[in-house]
Amino acid sequence: MGWGDLGAFGEPSKETPNLDQMASEGMLFLDFYTANPLCSPSRAALLTGRLPVRNGFYTTNAHARNAYTPQDIVGGIPDSELLLPELLKKAGYVNKIIGKWHLGHRPQFHPLKHGFDEWFGSPNCHFGPFDNRALPNIPVYRDWEMIGRYYEDFKIDLSTGEANLTQIYLQEALDFISNQQASQQPFFLYWAIDATHAPVYASKQFLGTSQRGLYGDAVREIDYSVGKILKHLQKLGISENTFVFFTSDNGAALISAPKQGGSNGPFLCGKQTTFEGGMREPAIAWWPGHIPAGGVSHQLGSVMDLFSTSLSLAGLQPPSDRQIDGIDLLPAILQGKLIDRPIFYYRGNEMMAVRVGSYKAHYWTWSNSWEEYNKGINFCPGQNVSGVTTHTQEEHTNLPLLFHLGRDPGEKYPLSFASDEYQRVMARISILVQEHKVTMVPGVPQLNVCDKAVMNWSPPGCEKLGKCLKPPKSEPKKCVWPH
Amino acid sequence: MGWGDLGAFGEPSKETPNLDQMASEGMLFLDFYTANPLCSPSRAALLTGRLPVRNGFYTTNAHARNAYTPQDIVGGIPDSELLLPELLKKAGYVNKIIGKWHLGHRPQFHPLKHGFDEWFGSPNCHFGPFDNRALPNIPVYRDWEMIGRYYEDFKIDLSTGEANLTQIYLQEALDFISNQQASQQPFFLYWAIDATHAPVYASKQFLGTSQRGLYGDAVREIDYSVGKILKHLQKLGISENTFVFFTSDNGAALISAPKQGGSNGPFLCGKQTTFEGGMREPAIAWWPGHIPAGGVSHQLGSVMDLFSTSLSLAGLQPPSDRQIDGIDLLPAILQGKLIDRPIFYYRGNEMMAVRVGSYKAHYWTWSNSWEEYNKGINFCPGQNVSGVTTHTQEEHTNLPLLFHLGRDPGEKYPLSFASDEYQRVMARISILVQEHKVTMVPGVPQLNVCDKAVMNWSPPGCEKLGKCLKPPKSEPKKCVWPH
Repeated sequence: MGWGDLGAFGEPSKETPNLDQMASEGMLFLDFYTANPLCSPSRAALLTGRLPVRNGFYTTNAHARNAYTPQDIVGGIPDSELLLPELLKKAGYVNKIIGKWHLGHRPQFHPLKHGFDEWFGSPNCHFGPFDNRALPNIPVYRDWEMIGRYYEDFKIDLSTGEANLTQIYLQEALDFISNQQASQQPFFLYWAIDATHAPVYASKQFLGTSQRGLYGDAVREIDYSVGKILKHLQKLGISENTFVFFTSDNGAALISAPKQGGSNGPFLCGKQTTFEGGMREPAIAWWPGHIPAGGVSHQLGSVMDLFSTSLSLAGLQPPSDRQIDGIDLLPAILQGKLIDRPIFYYRGNEMMAVRVGSYKAHYWTWSNSWEEYNKGINFCPGQNVSGVTTHTQEEHTNLPLLFHLGRDPGEKYPLSFASDEYQRVMARISILVQEHKVTMVPGVPQLNVCDKAVMNWSPPGCEKLGKCLKPPKSEPKKCVWPH
Repeated sequence: MGWGDLGAFGEPSKETPNLDQMASEGMLFLDFYTANPLCSPSRAALLTGRLPVRNGFYTTNAHARNAYTPQDIVGGIPDSELLLPELLKKAGYVNKIIGKWHLGHRPQFHPLKHGFDEWFGSPNCHFGPFDNRALPNIPVYRDWEMIGRYYEDFKIDLSTGEANLTQIYLQEALDFISNQQASQQPFFLYWAIDATHAPVYASKQFLGTSQRGLYGDAVREIDYSVGKILKHLQKLGISENTFVFFTSDNGAALISAPKQGGSNGPFLCGKQTTFEGGMREPAIAWWPGHIPAGGVSHQLGSVMDLFSTSLSLAGLQPPSDRQIDGIDLLPAILQGKLIDRPIFYYRGNEMMAVRVGSYKAHYWTWSNSWEEYNKGINFCPGQNVSGVTTHTQEEHTNLPLLFHLGRDPGEKYPLSFASDEYQRVMARISILVQEHKVTMVPGVPQLNVCDKAVMNWSPPGCEKLGKCLKPPKSEPKKCVWPH
C-alpha cells in the first residue's frame, strides 16, 4: 500500500472512511517510513527493531539489490535476533500473528519458535496457482501445522479477483481479541494481512465497489476490516487499553498499476526503490483517551519504531546487547515532541539515501537496470527525473544529491552543490552517515542462497491432509536478485 | 493553486489548518474543475457561467493556445456578457471584487461597468517591477480610480518575497462584510486575491514559516485569511446566511517549482495543460447549518457552476437567451445528489478533452512545443507519459485517448482501443461531444489583438497621483501565444 492510498492522505476517490476516521480519532504520521522498499526485510525490521542489514534480511549476491523470502530461500530470521513477541512474553503478553510471516518458511524460522503463541496465515506471499510440481502452492498454517494451501483450500480466483482471505483474517482477529479480553490477558496482535499485494483480491461483497478498480476493492476491504477491529475493541471496552498502529511494509507497487497497483501520492516512484514512493508509508496511531484526536505528526518515524514503542508501552526495555534502530515514539505520540533522528534508505547492503530533518541525501540512485526497463519493468511509470531515476547504479557518495522534501516532496530538484544550503546541510549529514557506517555491524546475510528443495513441499501437518509433496534434489545456489 | 496544495487534499506538510477545518465543517469537492488551465479565461467563465470559447476569452491566432489579459491586450469582457454581479443586483445584492479582475483593463471593461459596486485591487497580474517606460507598473484601483501601482505604492520585495497584499485584501474583505452586515444588505464578495501566483509573496509574519518554502508561506497566509473571514462571519452571526466557496482558477504552475510552484497531488502536469494537474482544483463549500459537516462530493463540478449556484441561492434564474455551461450545484451540496454532466477541457479554441463520469477522453494532447521545452520551459517536470504529454499537438479525434480517472488518476494508462470498455464508453462520449460541437456558438475572440498603447499608462485617477504616463503610438498586432 502506498502513502497516497488513503483518503486522509489525499487519494482522490476518498474511499477509506474507517481509516480516515481512525486518523481523525488518533494521530496521522505524515513522515513515516518502512525500513526497506520490499516486504520481507521490512517485516523483519518491524519485529526486530533493526535495519535489515543488521538482522540479516539482505543479500550480498550483487550490489544494492532488493531481496525477500520466496519459496526457494534457504535463510530466514536468525535465532540470534530478538523479536518483539519474544520480549513481550516477559510482560505476560499473548502474541498472535495473522497473515503473512515472510521471515523464512523452514522449520527453524517458524513464528512460534520466535515468540508468537499463535499463527494463522502463510509463510510466503500468495503467488500462484502453482502446479505442485515445479512449485508447490503456498501453505496456510494454523499454529504449528499447515491446514491447507492457497488456491486449493483457500481459494483465490485470479480471473475474477475474488478471495475471502481478508474476511477470514478479520474474523480471526476479532476472535483472538475477544478471547484475550475474556481471559484478561494482555495481547499483541500482528495483523499482517497480505491484501493489496499482487495478485490483488477482494471478497465478493467488495468486488466492483471501488472507483479505483480491483486494487481499490482490496483497499476498501482493508478499510472495512480495520473499522471492524476498532469497533470491536470499543465494544469490548478495551479501546483505551489498546494501542493500534496502521501502516504498510512498502510503497505501492507501481509496476502493477493501473489494475493492481496503488498510489504513492505526490512522491517519486514506488516499491523496490529508495525514492519516497518506495518507502514513505501511510501511518496512523490510535489509542482513544491517550492520543489526542485529530493529531498530526511530522516526526520522522519508521516501522522499526513500533518495536521500541511497543516495548515502552509494555514497560519493557529494549535489548542492550545490540544496536536497535527503532526509537520509542511515545513522546511524539503523547506529548507532540519532535525527536531528531535520521532515516536510512537501504537497498540490500547499500545505504542508498538518508533523511535528516526535511533533507534527503541520495548517495546512490537507481530505479532498475536498462535491461529490465527495456523489458517493460518500470518502477517509476510516467515519471522520469533526469539524473535521479537512473537506470544504471549511480554513485554520488562524494557529492550526494540533496533534496528538501518540504519544498520538493517529489524529489525533482536537487539542491545546487555550490549553495550555502547544500554545504551547511551536507556537513551535518556527512557526520551522521560516517557514524552510521563506521559503527555498522552487518548481520550474516540470509537472502543469498536459494534451493528448490526447501520450498513448501511438505510442511508440518501435510500428512494429515494428504498434501505432502516430494521435494526435488537439493541444489543450493546463489539467488538471482535482478533489482 | 493546485489540487494537492491543501492538507485536506494530501499535501504532505499539511499546513492549511483553516482550510482543512473549513472542509471538515463543510463539503469537500474532489472532482472540481476550472474552466481553463489559465487565469483570465477561468475567471471570465466563473463570472459568466460560460465556457471561455463562448464568452470570448480565447484566441484564434494559433491552434489550441492559452491566452490571457496581459497589459497590452486590447480585448476584455464584452458588454453582451451577463456577469453574476449584474444579475445579483436584481435581487438587491451589493457586489464587491477584491483582488485581481483580469477581464480586461481598458475603461469599457471596468468591473464597476459589469455589475460590481465596489472594487479594490488590480486589473492584471502583479508582474513587475517595470520601468514605466517599456511597461508601466500595474495599477491598484479603489472603485473607479487607481490609487497607486504595484511595486511603487503597494510594495512587493522580490528579493525577500515580502508583500502585505494578502493582508490588505483580507482587511478589505472583513470591512466589507462588517459594513454589509451593519446595513443588513445581502452581498456577493468575490475575494479574487492573486497570491500564490508568481512572483510569489507573503507578509512578513508568514515568511519562512512553511516547510514548503515561499510558496508554502503564501498558501499559509491564504489559509490564515480564509480562517479569519469564516470566523468573522460567525462572529457577526451571519455564517448560516452566507454561502462560501473556496477554489482556484488553474492548477499549480509547475514551471515555477520548486521555489514558486505548488502541488497538483497525484495528477499529471500543471497549469497551461488540459491534463488533470492543469484543471482539477481544490474546492470546498461551507455553509453551517445547511451543508452537512464533513461531507465529500464526487460531483463533477466547475467554477462555472458557481455562477448558476449563486443565482439559485439568490432565487434568480439564469439567463435564458444564451447557453450557460454552469449547473446549479445545490442538489449536490444540500442533498448529496450526483448530477450527470460532462466537463470540457479547452485550450484556446480547441476542445482538448472531455470528462464523462470517471472517464476522460483526450481529443488532442499537447504539453508544450519542443522549441519551448528545449529552452527549459516544462509544464510537466519529472513527468513523461509516452504519447500523452506530447510536445507536438497530437490529434486523436478519430480515436481519442481514453483514461479511467478512478483507476488511473495520473493519466498514465490509456485504455486499449480494442477493449469493450473503450467501445462502450466512447460510444456515449462521442454523442456528447458531437452535440457540444454542433451547438457551439463561439463568441468573438477577445484575446487576439495586442497593442502597447492600451497598457495601464494613464488609468483614471492617475492625475491626482501624478502617476500618468505617456502611452506609445498605437500599433495593434496579433498577440503571440506560444503555448
